[in-house]
Formats: sequence, C-alpha cells, structure tokens
Amino acid sequence: MSHLSAQYSSTLRVHLDDRPGSFARLAQAIGDAGGLLDAIDLVRVERGTKVRDVTLLASDPAHLESILAAVGALPGVEVEHVADRTFHLHEGGKIEVTPKTPLKTRDDLSMAYTPGVARISSAIAERPELVWDLTAKRNAVAVVTDGTAVLGLGDIGPEAALPVMEGKAMLFKEFGGVDAWPLCLATKDVDEIVAAVAAIAPGFGGINLEDISAPRCFEIEERLRGQLDIPVFHDDQHGTAVVVLAALLNALRVVGKRPEDIKVVLVGVGAAGTAISKILLAAGVSRLVGCDRMGAIHSGQAGLDARLAEYAKLTNPDGERGSADDVLAGADVFVGVSGPGAVSADAIGRMAEGSIVFAMANPTPEVHPEDIHDVAAVIATGRSDYPNQINNVLAFPGIFRGALDVRAAAITEEMKLAAAHAIAGMISADELGPEYVIPAVLNRDVAPLVAAAVASAAERSGVARLPAAP
Amino acid sequence: MSHLSAQYSSTLRVHLDDRPGSFARLAQAIGDAGGLLDAIDLVRVERGTKVRDVTLLASDPAHLESILAAVGALPGVEVEHVADRTFHLHEGGKIEVTPKTPLKTRDDLSMAYTPGVARISSAIAERPELVWDLTAKRNAVAVVTDGTAVLGLGDIGPEAALPVMEGKAMLFKEFGGVDAWPLCLATKDVDEIVAAVAAIAPGFGGINLEDISAPRCFEIEERLRGQLDIPVFHDDQHGTAVVVLAALLNALRVVGKRPEDIKVVLVGVGAAGTAISKILLAAGVSRLVGCDRMGAIHSGQAGLDARLAEYAKLTNPDGERGSADDVLAGADVFVGVSGPGAVSADAIGRMAEGSIVFAMANPTPEVHPEDIHDVAAVIATGRSDYPNQINNVLAFPGIFRGALDVRAAAITEEMKLAAAHAIAGMISADELGPEYVIPAVLNRDVAPLVAAAVASAAERSGVARLPAAP
Repeated sequence: MSHLSAQYSSTLRVHLDDRPGSFARLAQAIGDAGGLLDAIDLVRVERGTKVRDVTLLASDPAHLESILAAVGALPGVEVEHVADRTFHLHEGGKIEVTPKTPLKTRDDLSMAYTPGVARISSAIAERPELVWDLTAKRNAVAVVTDGTAVLGLGDIGPEAALPVMEGKAMLFKEFGGVDAWPLCLATKDVDEIVAAVAAIAPGFGGINLEDISAPRCFEIEERLRGQLDIPVFHDDQHGTAVVVLAALLNALRVVGKRPEDIKVVLVGVGAAGTAISKILLAAGVSRLVGCDRMGAIHSGQAGLDARLAEYAKLTNPDGERGSADDVLAGADVFVGVSGPGAVSADAIGRMAEGSIVFAMANPTPEVHPEDIHDVAAVIATGRSDYPNQINNVLAFPGIFRGALDVRAAAITEEMKLAAAHAIAGMISADELGPEYVIPAVLNRDVAPLVAAAVASAAERSGVARLPAAP
Repeated sequence: MSHLSAQYSSTLRVHLDDRPGSFARLAQAIGDAGGLLDAIDLVRVERGTKVRDVTLLASDPAHLESILAAVGALPGVEVEHVADRTFHLHEGGKIEVTPKTPLKTRDDLSMAYTPGVARISSAIAERPELVWDLTAKRNAVAVVTDGTAVLGLGDIGPEAALPVMEGKAMLFKEFGGVDAWPLCLATKDVDEIVAAVAAIAPGFGGINLEDISAPRCFEIEERLRGQLDIPVFHDDQHGTAVVVLAALLNALRVVGKRPEDIKVVLVGVGAAGTAISKILLAAGVSRLVGCDRMGAIHSGQAGLDARLAEYAKLTNPDGERGSADDVLAGADVFVGVSGPGAVSADAIGRMAEGSIVFAMANPTPEVHPEDIHDVAAVIATGRSDYPNQINNVLAFPGIFRGALDVRAAAITEEMKLAAAHAIAGMISADELGPEYVIPAVLNRDVAPLVAAAVASAAERSGVARLPAAP
C-alpha cells in the first residue's frame, strides 16, 4: 500500500503559456496521474508565459516519474527543472553550530576568547563542577551511532547514518531545547566504540546511543553506564520502551484492564523488544511471553544464549511453548517489534476480548490494521498514517531535557517510568479513546511535561546533581 | 604591567539617591580607583532613587575589588549586585546547535526525519561521496583537545579546556562560516587520542587539533594525517606558523630585505616553534637558528632526541653555538615562542640594522616592546594592546573555509604558504609600515581571501575533491 507523502514531494518550475485554462490543464494532468497539488507560487511573468513553482506529492519515485511524464506531455507546458524537496532540504546538512553571543568587537573577543576565557578555564580547573555552569556541556548531548542498525535499512555505515542523526539533533533542539551533535563512528568494535565515547564524554551532559545493532548495543550501553557520570541512553531500546508503556497504560484505560492482570505477547526480542519487556515488568505486568523466530522463549529451552536465558528467567512464568500465533490465544496485548507477517490476523482474532495490538514494524506492520479492525479494541503502529503512532520523538527530547535540567548522572528505571506516565497523562479521560491513546508527535506540550517528571524522578532516584524545579 | 580590559569588566546594579551630583560622585569614585566607566543604563526610577546598571573595566580581579570597595563606601549609593561580564557571558556555554530548516509540520518531519530521511541515507549508502552533498559533514570541523597545553595555563584537563574550544568554535563560525564542535578528550594517551579522532571522523570535513602538548601533538597529527582523508590541522603549530610568516613577509617589505638573505633566530622549539621553522624554510629562509633552554640547537650536539636531531639537520647551517643572546648578534629576525626573559634587550640591540622582533610569549613577551623601541625596526607580539598582533584567528577560519569549499583531503604546505601570502597581501604598499605588518584580528575581509587562496592551492596540490571557484 502506498500513500502520497511529503517525502516524495517535488517542486517543478514550469513555464505555462499565458492562456485561459493552461494552469487548469496542468492541475488536471497531475490529478489524473494520482499526484497531489500542494503549494503553487508565481515566480515571474514573461512575454506570453507564466513561470510557476508547483509543489506536488507523489507516493514513490516511480509515481513521481509518471506524473512528470504526464506533465511533460502537455502542450503549452515546459518543465524548467524539478527539485526533489527532500533532497533539496538535505543539501549541505540540516544543522549548524551558532554562537550564542556576538563576536563583533575587541571587547567581545577579549571576554569570549583570549585573554578573558583563561579566567573561565582557570575557574573550572580549580572547581571542576563549574564546567556545568560555564560551558555548553550543560545542554549538550552526543548522538552516537556506528551505523549498523539504521531505521529499516540495517548496516549502512556511519556516513549514510549521518542524515538520520542530524534529524535526531533537530528534534532534540526543536522539542527539548537540547544541543545535540551527531558522532558517527567508523568502527563496529565494542571496545573501540566504548573507548571513543568515553573519550569524548567530558564536553557532553549526556550520550544518546542510536541505531546500534543488537546484541552489541547492550554491552556498549552497559559498559558506558558503568564508566561515565552522565546519562547514557540507547534510544532504540529505552525511548521505544517508554512510548510503548505510555500507549499501553492508556490502551488499558480504554479497555478497563490493569497491568497486573494482563497477558502480553511480545514478538521480536532485539534491542527494542528487550527494553520494552523490562519496562513492562517494571510497570507491573507479570504474564509476558517473548517470542523470536523460534517461537515463545521459555526457560526450559535448549541453546539459549546468556542474554535470552536471562530473558527466559524473567518472563513466561507459565512456560508456554509454541509459535507467536499459538501463544497469542487468549492474550490481552500484542506488542510487535519484528517484521511484517510475524503474526496472523487469525491469531489476533483468538486474543481475549478487548485486545490491544501494537504492530510497530516499519514501514510495514506485523499485521495490517485493516485486517484486524473488527477484532482488536485498540490498534497502534509506528506509522503516521494510522491513529496511535508510537514514536520515540515523544520521549527522548523530554527525557534528556529533564536529565540535563538536574544534571543527572544517569537515567534510571524510575525516570523512564515517570516519562511514560507523563506521556500517558497528556490525554485526559474525556479525550481518551481507541484511536487516541498516545499524543501526536508534534504536540509541543509533551516534552516539557516529560522533562519535569523525569527531573523529579532523577531527584528521587538520587542521580540528580541539582534539585528539580518545584 | 596591567591594562584595563573588558575581560575584567563588570556590571554593577546600583541604587543612587536621586539628588544632584550623586551620579557624578559615583563616576568620580570609579575614576579615582582607576576604573574605566563603560556603559551606563537606567534600569528604573523608584521613589527618590535611580537604579542604574553601570559597566566598568578593571585591570585585574584585585583592582575590581578595590573599585567595588570605593563605590560601596559612598554615601547615597547602594550596590544591589555585581555581575562579572566575562563569567556572565559564559553562563550555559557560548555555542548551540540550530536546525537549518523548520520542523513544524508533519511534512517537515517526513522529509527531515522519518520516513523521508531513509531516502537520503539510502542514496549515501549507494554513493558514499554524497555524504559531502547531503549532510553537515561538508561544513563541520571537530575542534579536538586533550586539555594538556591550554593557552598559558598548561595541563588543565578537558573540562577546563572546553571554554577555549567553544570560543574557537565561535570564531570558526563568525569568520569562516564553519560549523565547529568541541571534542575535549578524557585521555592523554596518543593511541587512544588517535583512535577516538579516527572513530569520529566520518561526520566531519576536517579536524582541528588544539592545545595538545608537545611532543605528543606531532605524533598524533602525523598518524591522523596518515589515516584520514580529511584535513587534520594542529592550529597551535600551523595556524601560528602561517600568521608568523605573513607578518614576516610584510616586515621584510618594510625593512627592504628578502627571505633568502636573512638570518633568523627562533627561541622555543616546541609545537609552534617547530612549525614556524618549517614554514620559514619552505618560504626560502636558509639561515635559521633554533634555540631551546640549552641555547642554539646544532647538529654536532650530544643528547638530542630524534625530533631535535632532525631539526638540527634542517637548520643552523653554520653550526652556531651559544645562548640565544649570543646567536642573536647580527641576526635580522628574532622569533620568540617561549617565555618572558628568553632574550635580553641588549642582545636585541646587537642585531643587524633593520631588525625584526616577534616576541610572542603570552601574556608577557620575551622582551618588552618598550625596552627595544629604539633598536628594533619592526616589533610584533601576541597581544592586542600593542601594534602588530600575531593571532591565529587570522588564519584558521579561512584555511578551513578554503579546505571545506574544495572538500580537501589534507592541508598541504602549499596551502599554508598560500594562506600566509593572502594574509600578508591584505596590506597594501600604501598602508604598510613598522606598526602595520599584519591585518587586525577583527578584519572580516581576511578569511574570504585566505579561503580563496587556500582552495586554489588545494587544487594545485592535488588534494581537492572539487575545483576551486574561479
């Protein structure tokens, strides 16, 4: 299934014969080809010709090509050039470094740089904690990746990962006021990654690990958490877990169930799946069955690696066996962080009354919402074109904002739970419904509330260097 | 000697009795205490009282204290608070990360982040060179230090070095339009530094090494230059060398001498001194005598380490021996990058007619300009309060701008020489004089000219990925 999307939007500069109906014919041709006309700007009028910039949405590159062909075939229309808006937007990168104060006069220079800056450096050398007051560390987060598990693209390397990390940095600033800079590492070696991140840590108030493949991501995060006195947070794990819990808390309100009473089946025990499992257990869920390609993970199973053996110990209390479809029978909640087709619509139909389905594989969900509308009470996906989009953007800007605000030394389980409850709490009882269990990704009220909740939780956890604002 | 400086400026919020002459008394007290009144702002008028913000310059912290004591003792004056402007300016850091495009709508998000960003990542994964077109790498420089040789402060550590690196990042943007981010490393180990910088390199178009102590800086730079396909430039060495050469070229024009004919004595063969020596040799100087604390370095000398033995081979062709003062006799140029008192005013007096003295120790020059005014034809220092300030700000923004503009793989000797000639060429024959051999640090015309010269030189050197602009 394909949707008209801004990601495939292009701006055409067209020369149109200045006669009645010529623009209408252009619009008609675009519409007939299935394109959506967006912005239309007049660039200039030449003799007998109008030059316009026409922005349109297509559903994929081939679709765009076919629209352009249709437009090009029109009499009285000449296409000067076509700008792919997504590529155009990325030209030269999406972030920059900006001075916060002017540097125009000798006095500016003598305060911000030499000789005055020596006073600041000396002050920090004498009292190291002043680095939090007098430098950008207070607000800076490194977005670190090795490019091994980027979006749905896999191991595409550090250079190809950079646009994603820049996008992340934009979101950090836009929603959390956090100054994030991408560090895309030219190594996949766990020791080297840990050493590089530990080396660059002094200038940052937090480390956001991103798109690092499992199982290396677990060891990297654990070792860095042990070494550093600033938060280390693998967003693919914990950001996802926080938003899933938030959505689940609200979905349970919709169907009138409690975490303690439900059975959850989770498919895909990778980075995100492991973290989601842990936060669900912390939130009170006891009957949780995790599945990988071999089916339900259970403690009697032979050949489990250390990580899955540990997982088996913490989950599946009844020792259920079988495929994901099998163990879904009678379950209350399905959480999918795997791939399309991991469970069947039929199996969803055999879940308990008031079933909750989070099918988060991207871009194609584990099971199509259209196929389970009749049987599932609440459906959420990772996509923006269905209701209830589970998106990390709801979590990480506020979590880091809150952590930085109290100069937290770590992000604790308590802080993550607080973030999830804050996100869930954004939706009042009046607003809550099967198609609205999680706030919209562009809701700017989310991050400040998450930040406040996280800061308070940091203080309660004993990792805050500053008290949380009252 | 101490100067009133903006680095010690403070803003006092004072409550003044609203009677004739009360402000005059305040101004008088500040003047009597040796302070310089700068900005005066009226904050508000209360019953019988005017509240003003009074900014003043002092020469050092003790001086500021004495001025505040004098003000505090005045009748009818109450000091509400005192803000140290340099500390105030550093509060929360001096740089931030800013999105270059808005992120307000779903369409923005779908182009700059998911799902659209996957198209960009895929494009780079297929054609790696596109990372230069579609990411911030094109304009990004890492400012890397281990905090071991920061300003005149020495080994103060990565945290205390951060304000200096932030200042550097401001200068990069302000003068070169370069996005520089500081990376202050928590290690002094050469292998670890090389590994960390090599690891983070993919996201950057250049590496500016900064304030790393000798001799480690030589090995770190050399190894990184060997490993990376982007410029690696230790500014303390090469930036200084470029500006020294620029000033020397002009000083020689003033006294009517040629590089080939002169004898240069250089004192302080550390990071900067070594690089200055090399660029002077490359510029045609043949009679160069380097001195350390033991005096003139010569190839017959016992106990030289490998680096100094190499240095001895390249310099001091006549095998001169003795102290710096000794070998200065009859020399045309003195270059000091050591410390106060490294040479005597008497020895400067024994230099050849038309002598050129660059006494660049900071903050106190090797020999005081006041003591040699009669005997030296051209004097330059590192300070802003004498004519002819030798300051790296004249070089590094333009050098990196030029290198990034052509996506240079390295910064070659030819590029450095081109930068020096471009800086020197800023001063026309009409303007040139003993007190004006180098442009002012805030001259915004310098960096673009340096960039153009460096870009062309990169092309000639064969390290440019793009042609230089014509």
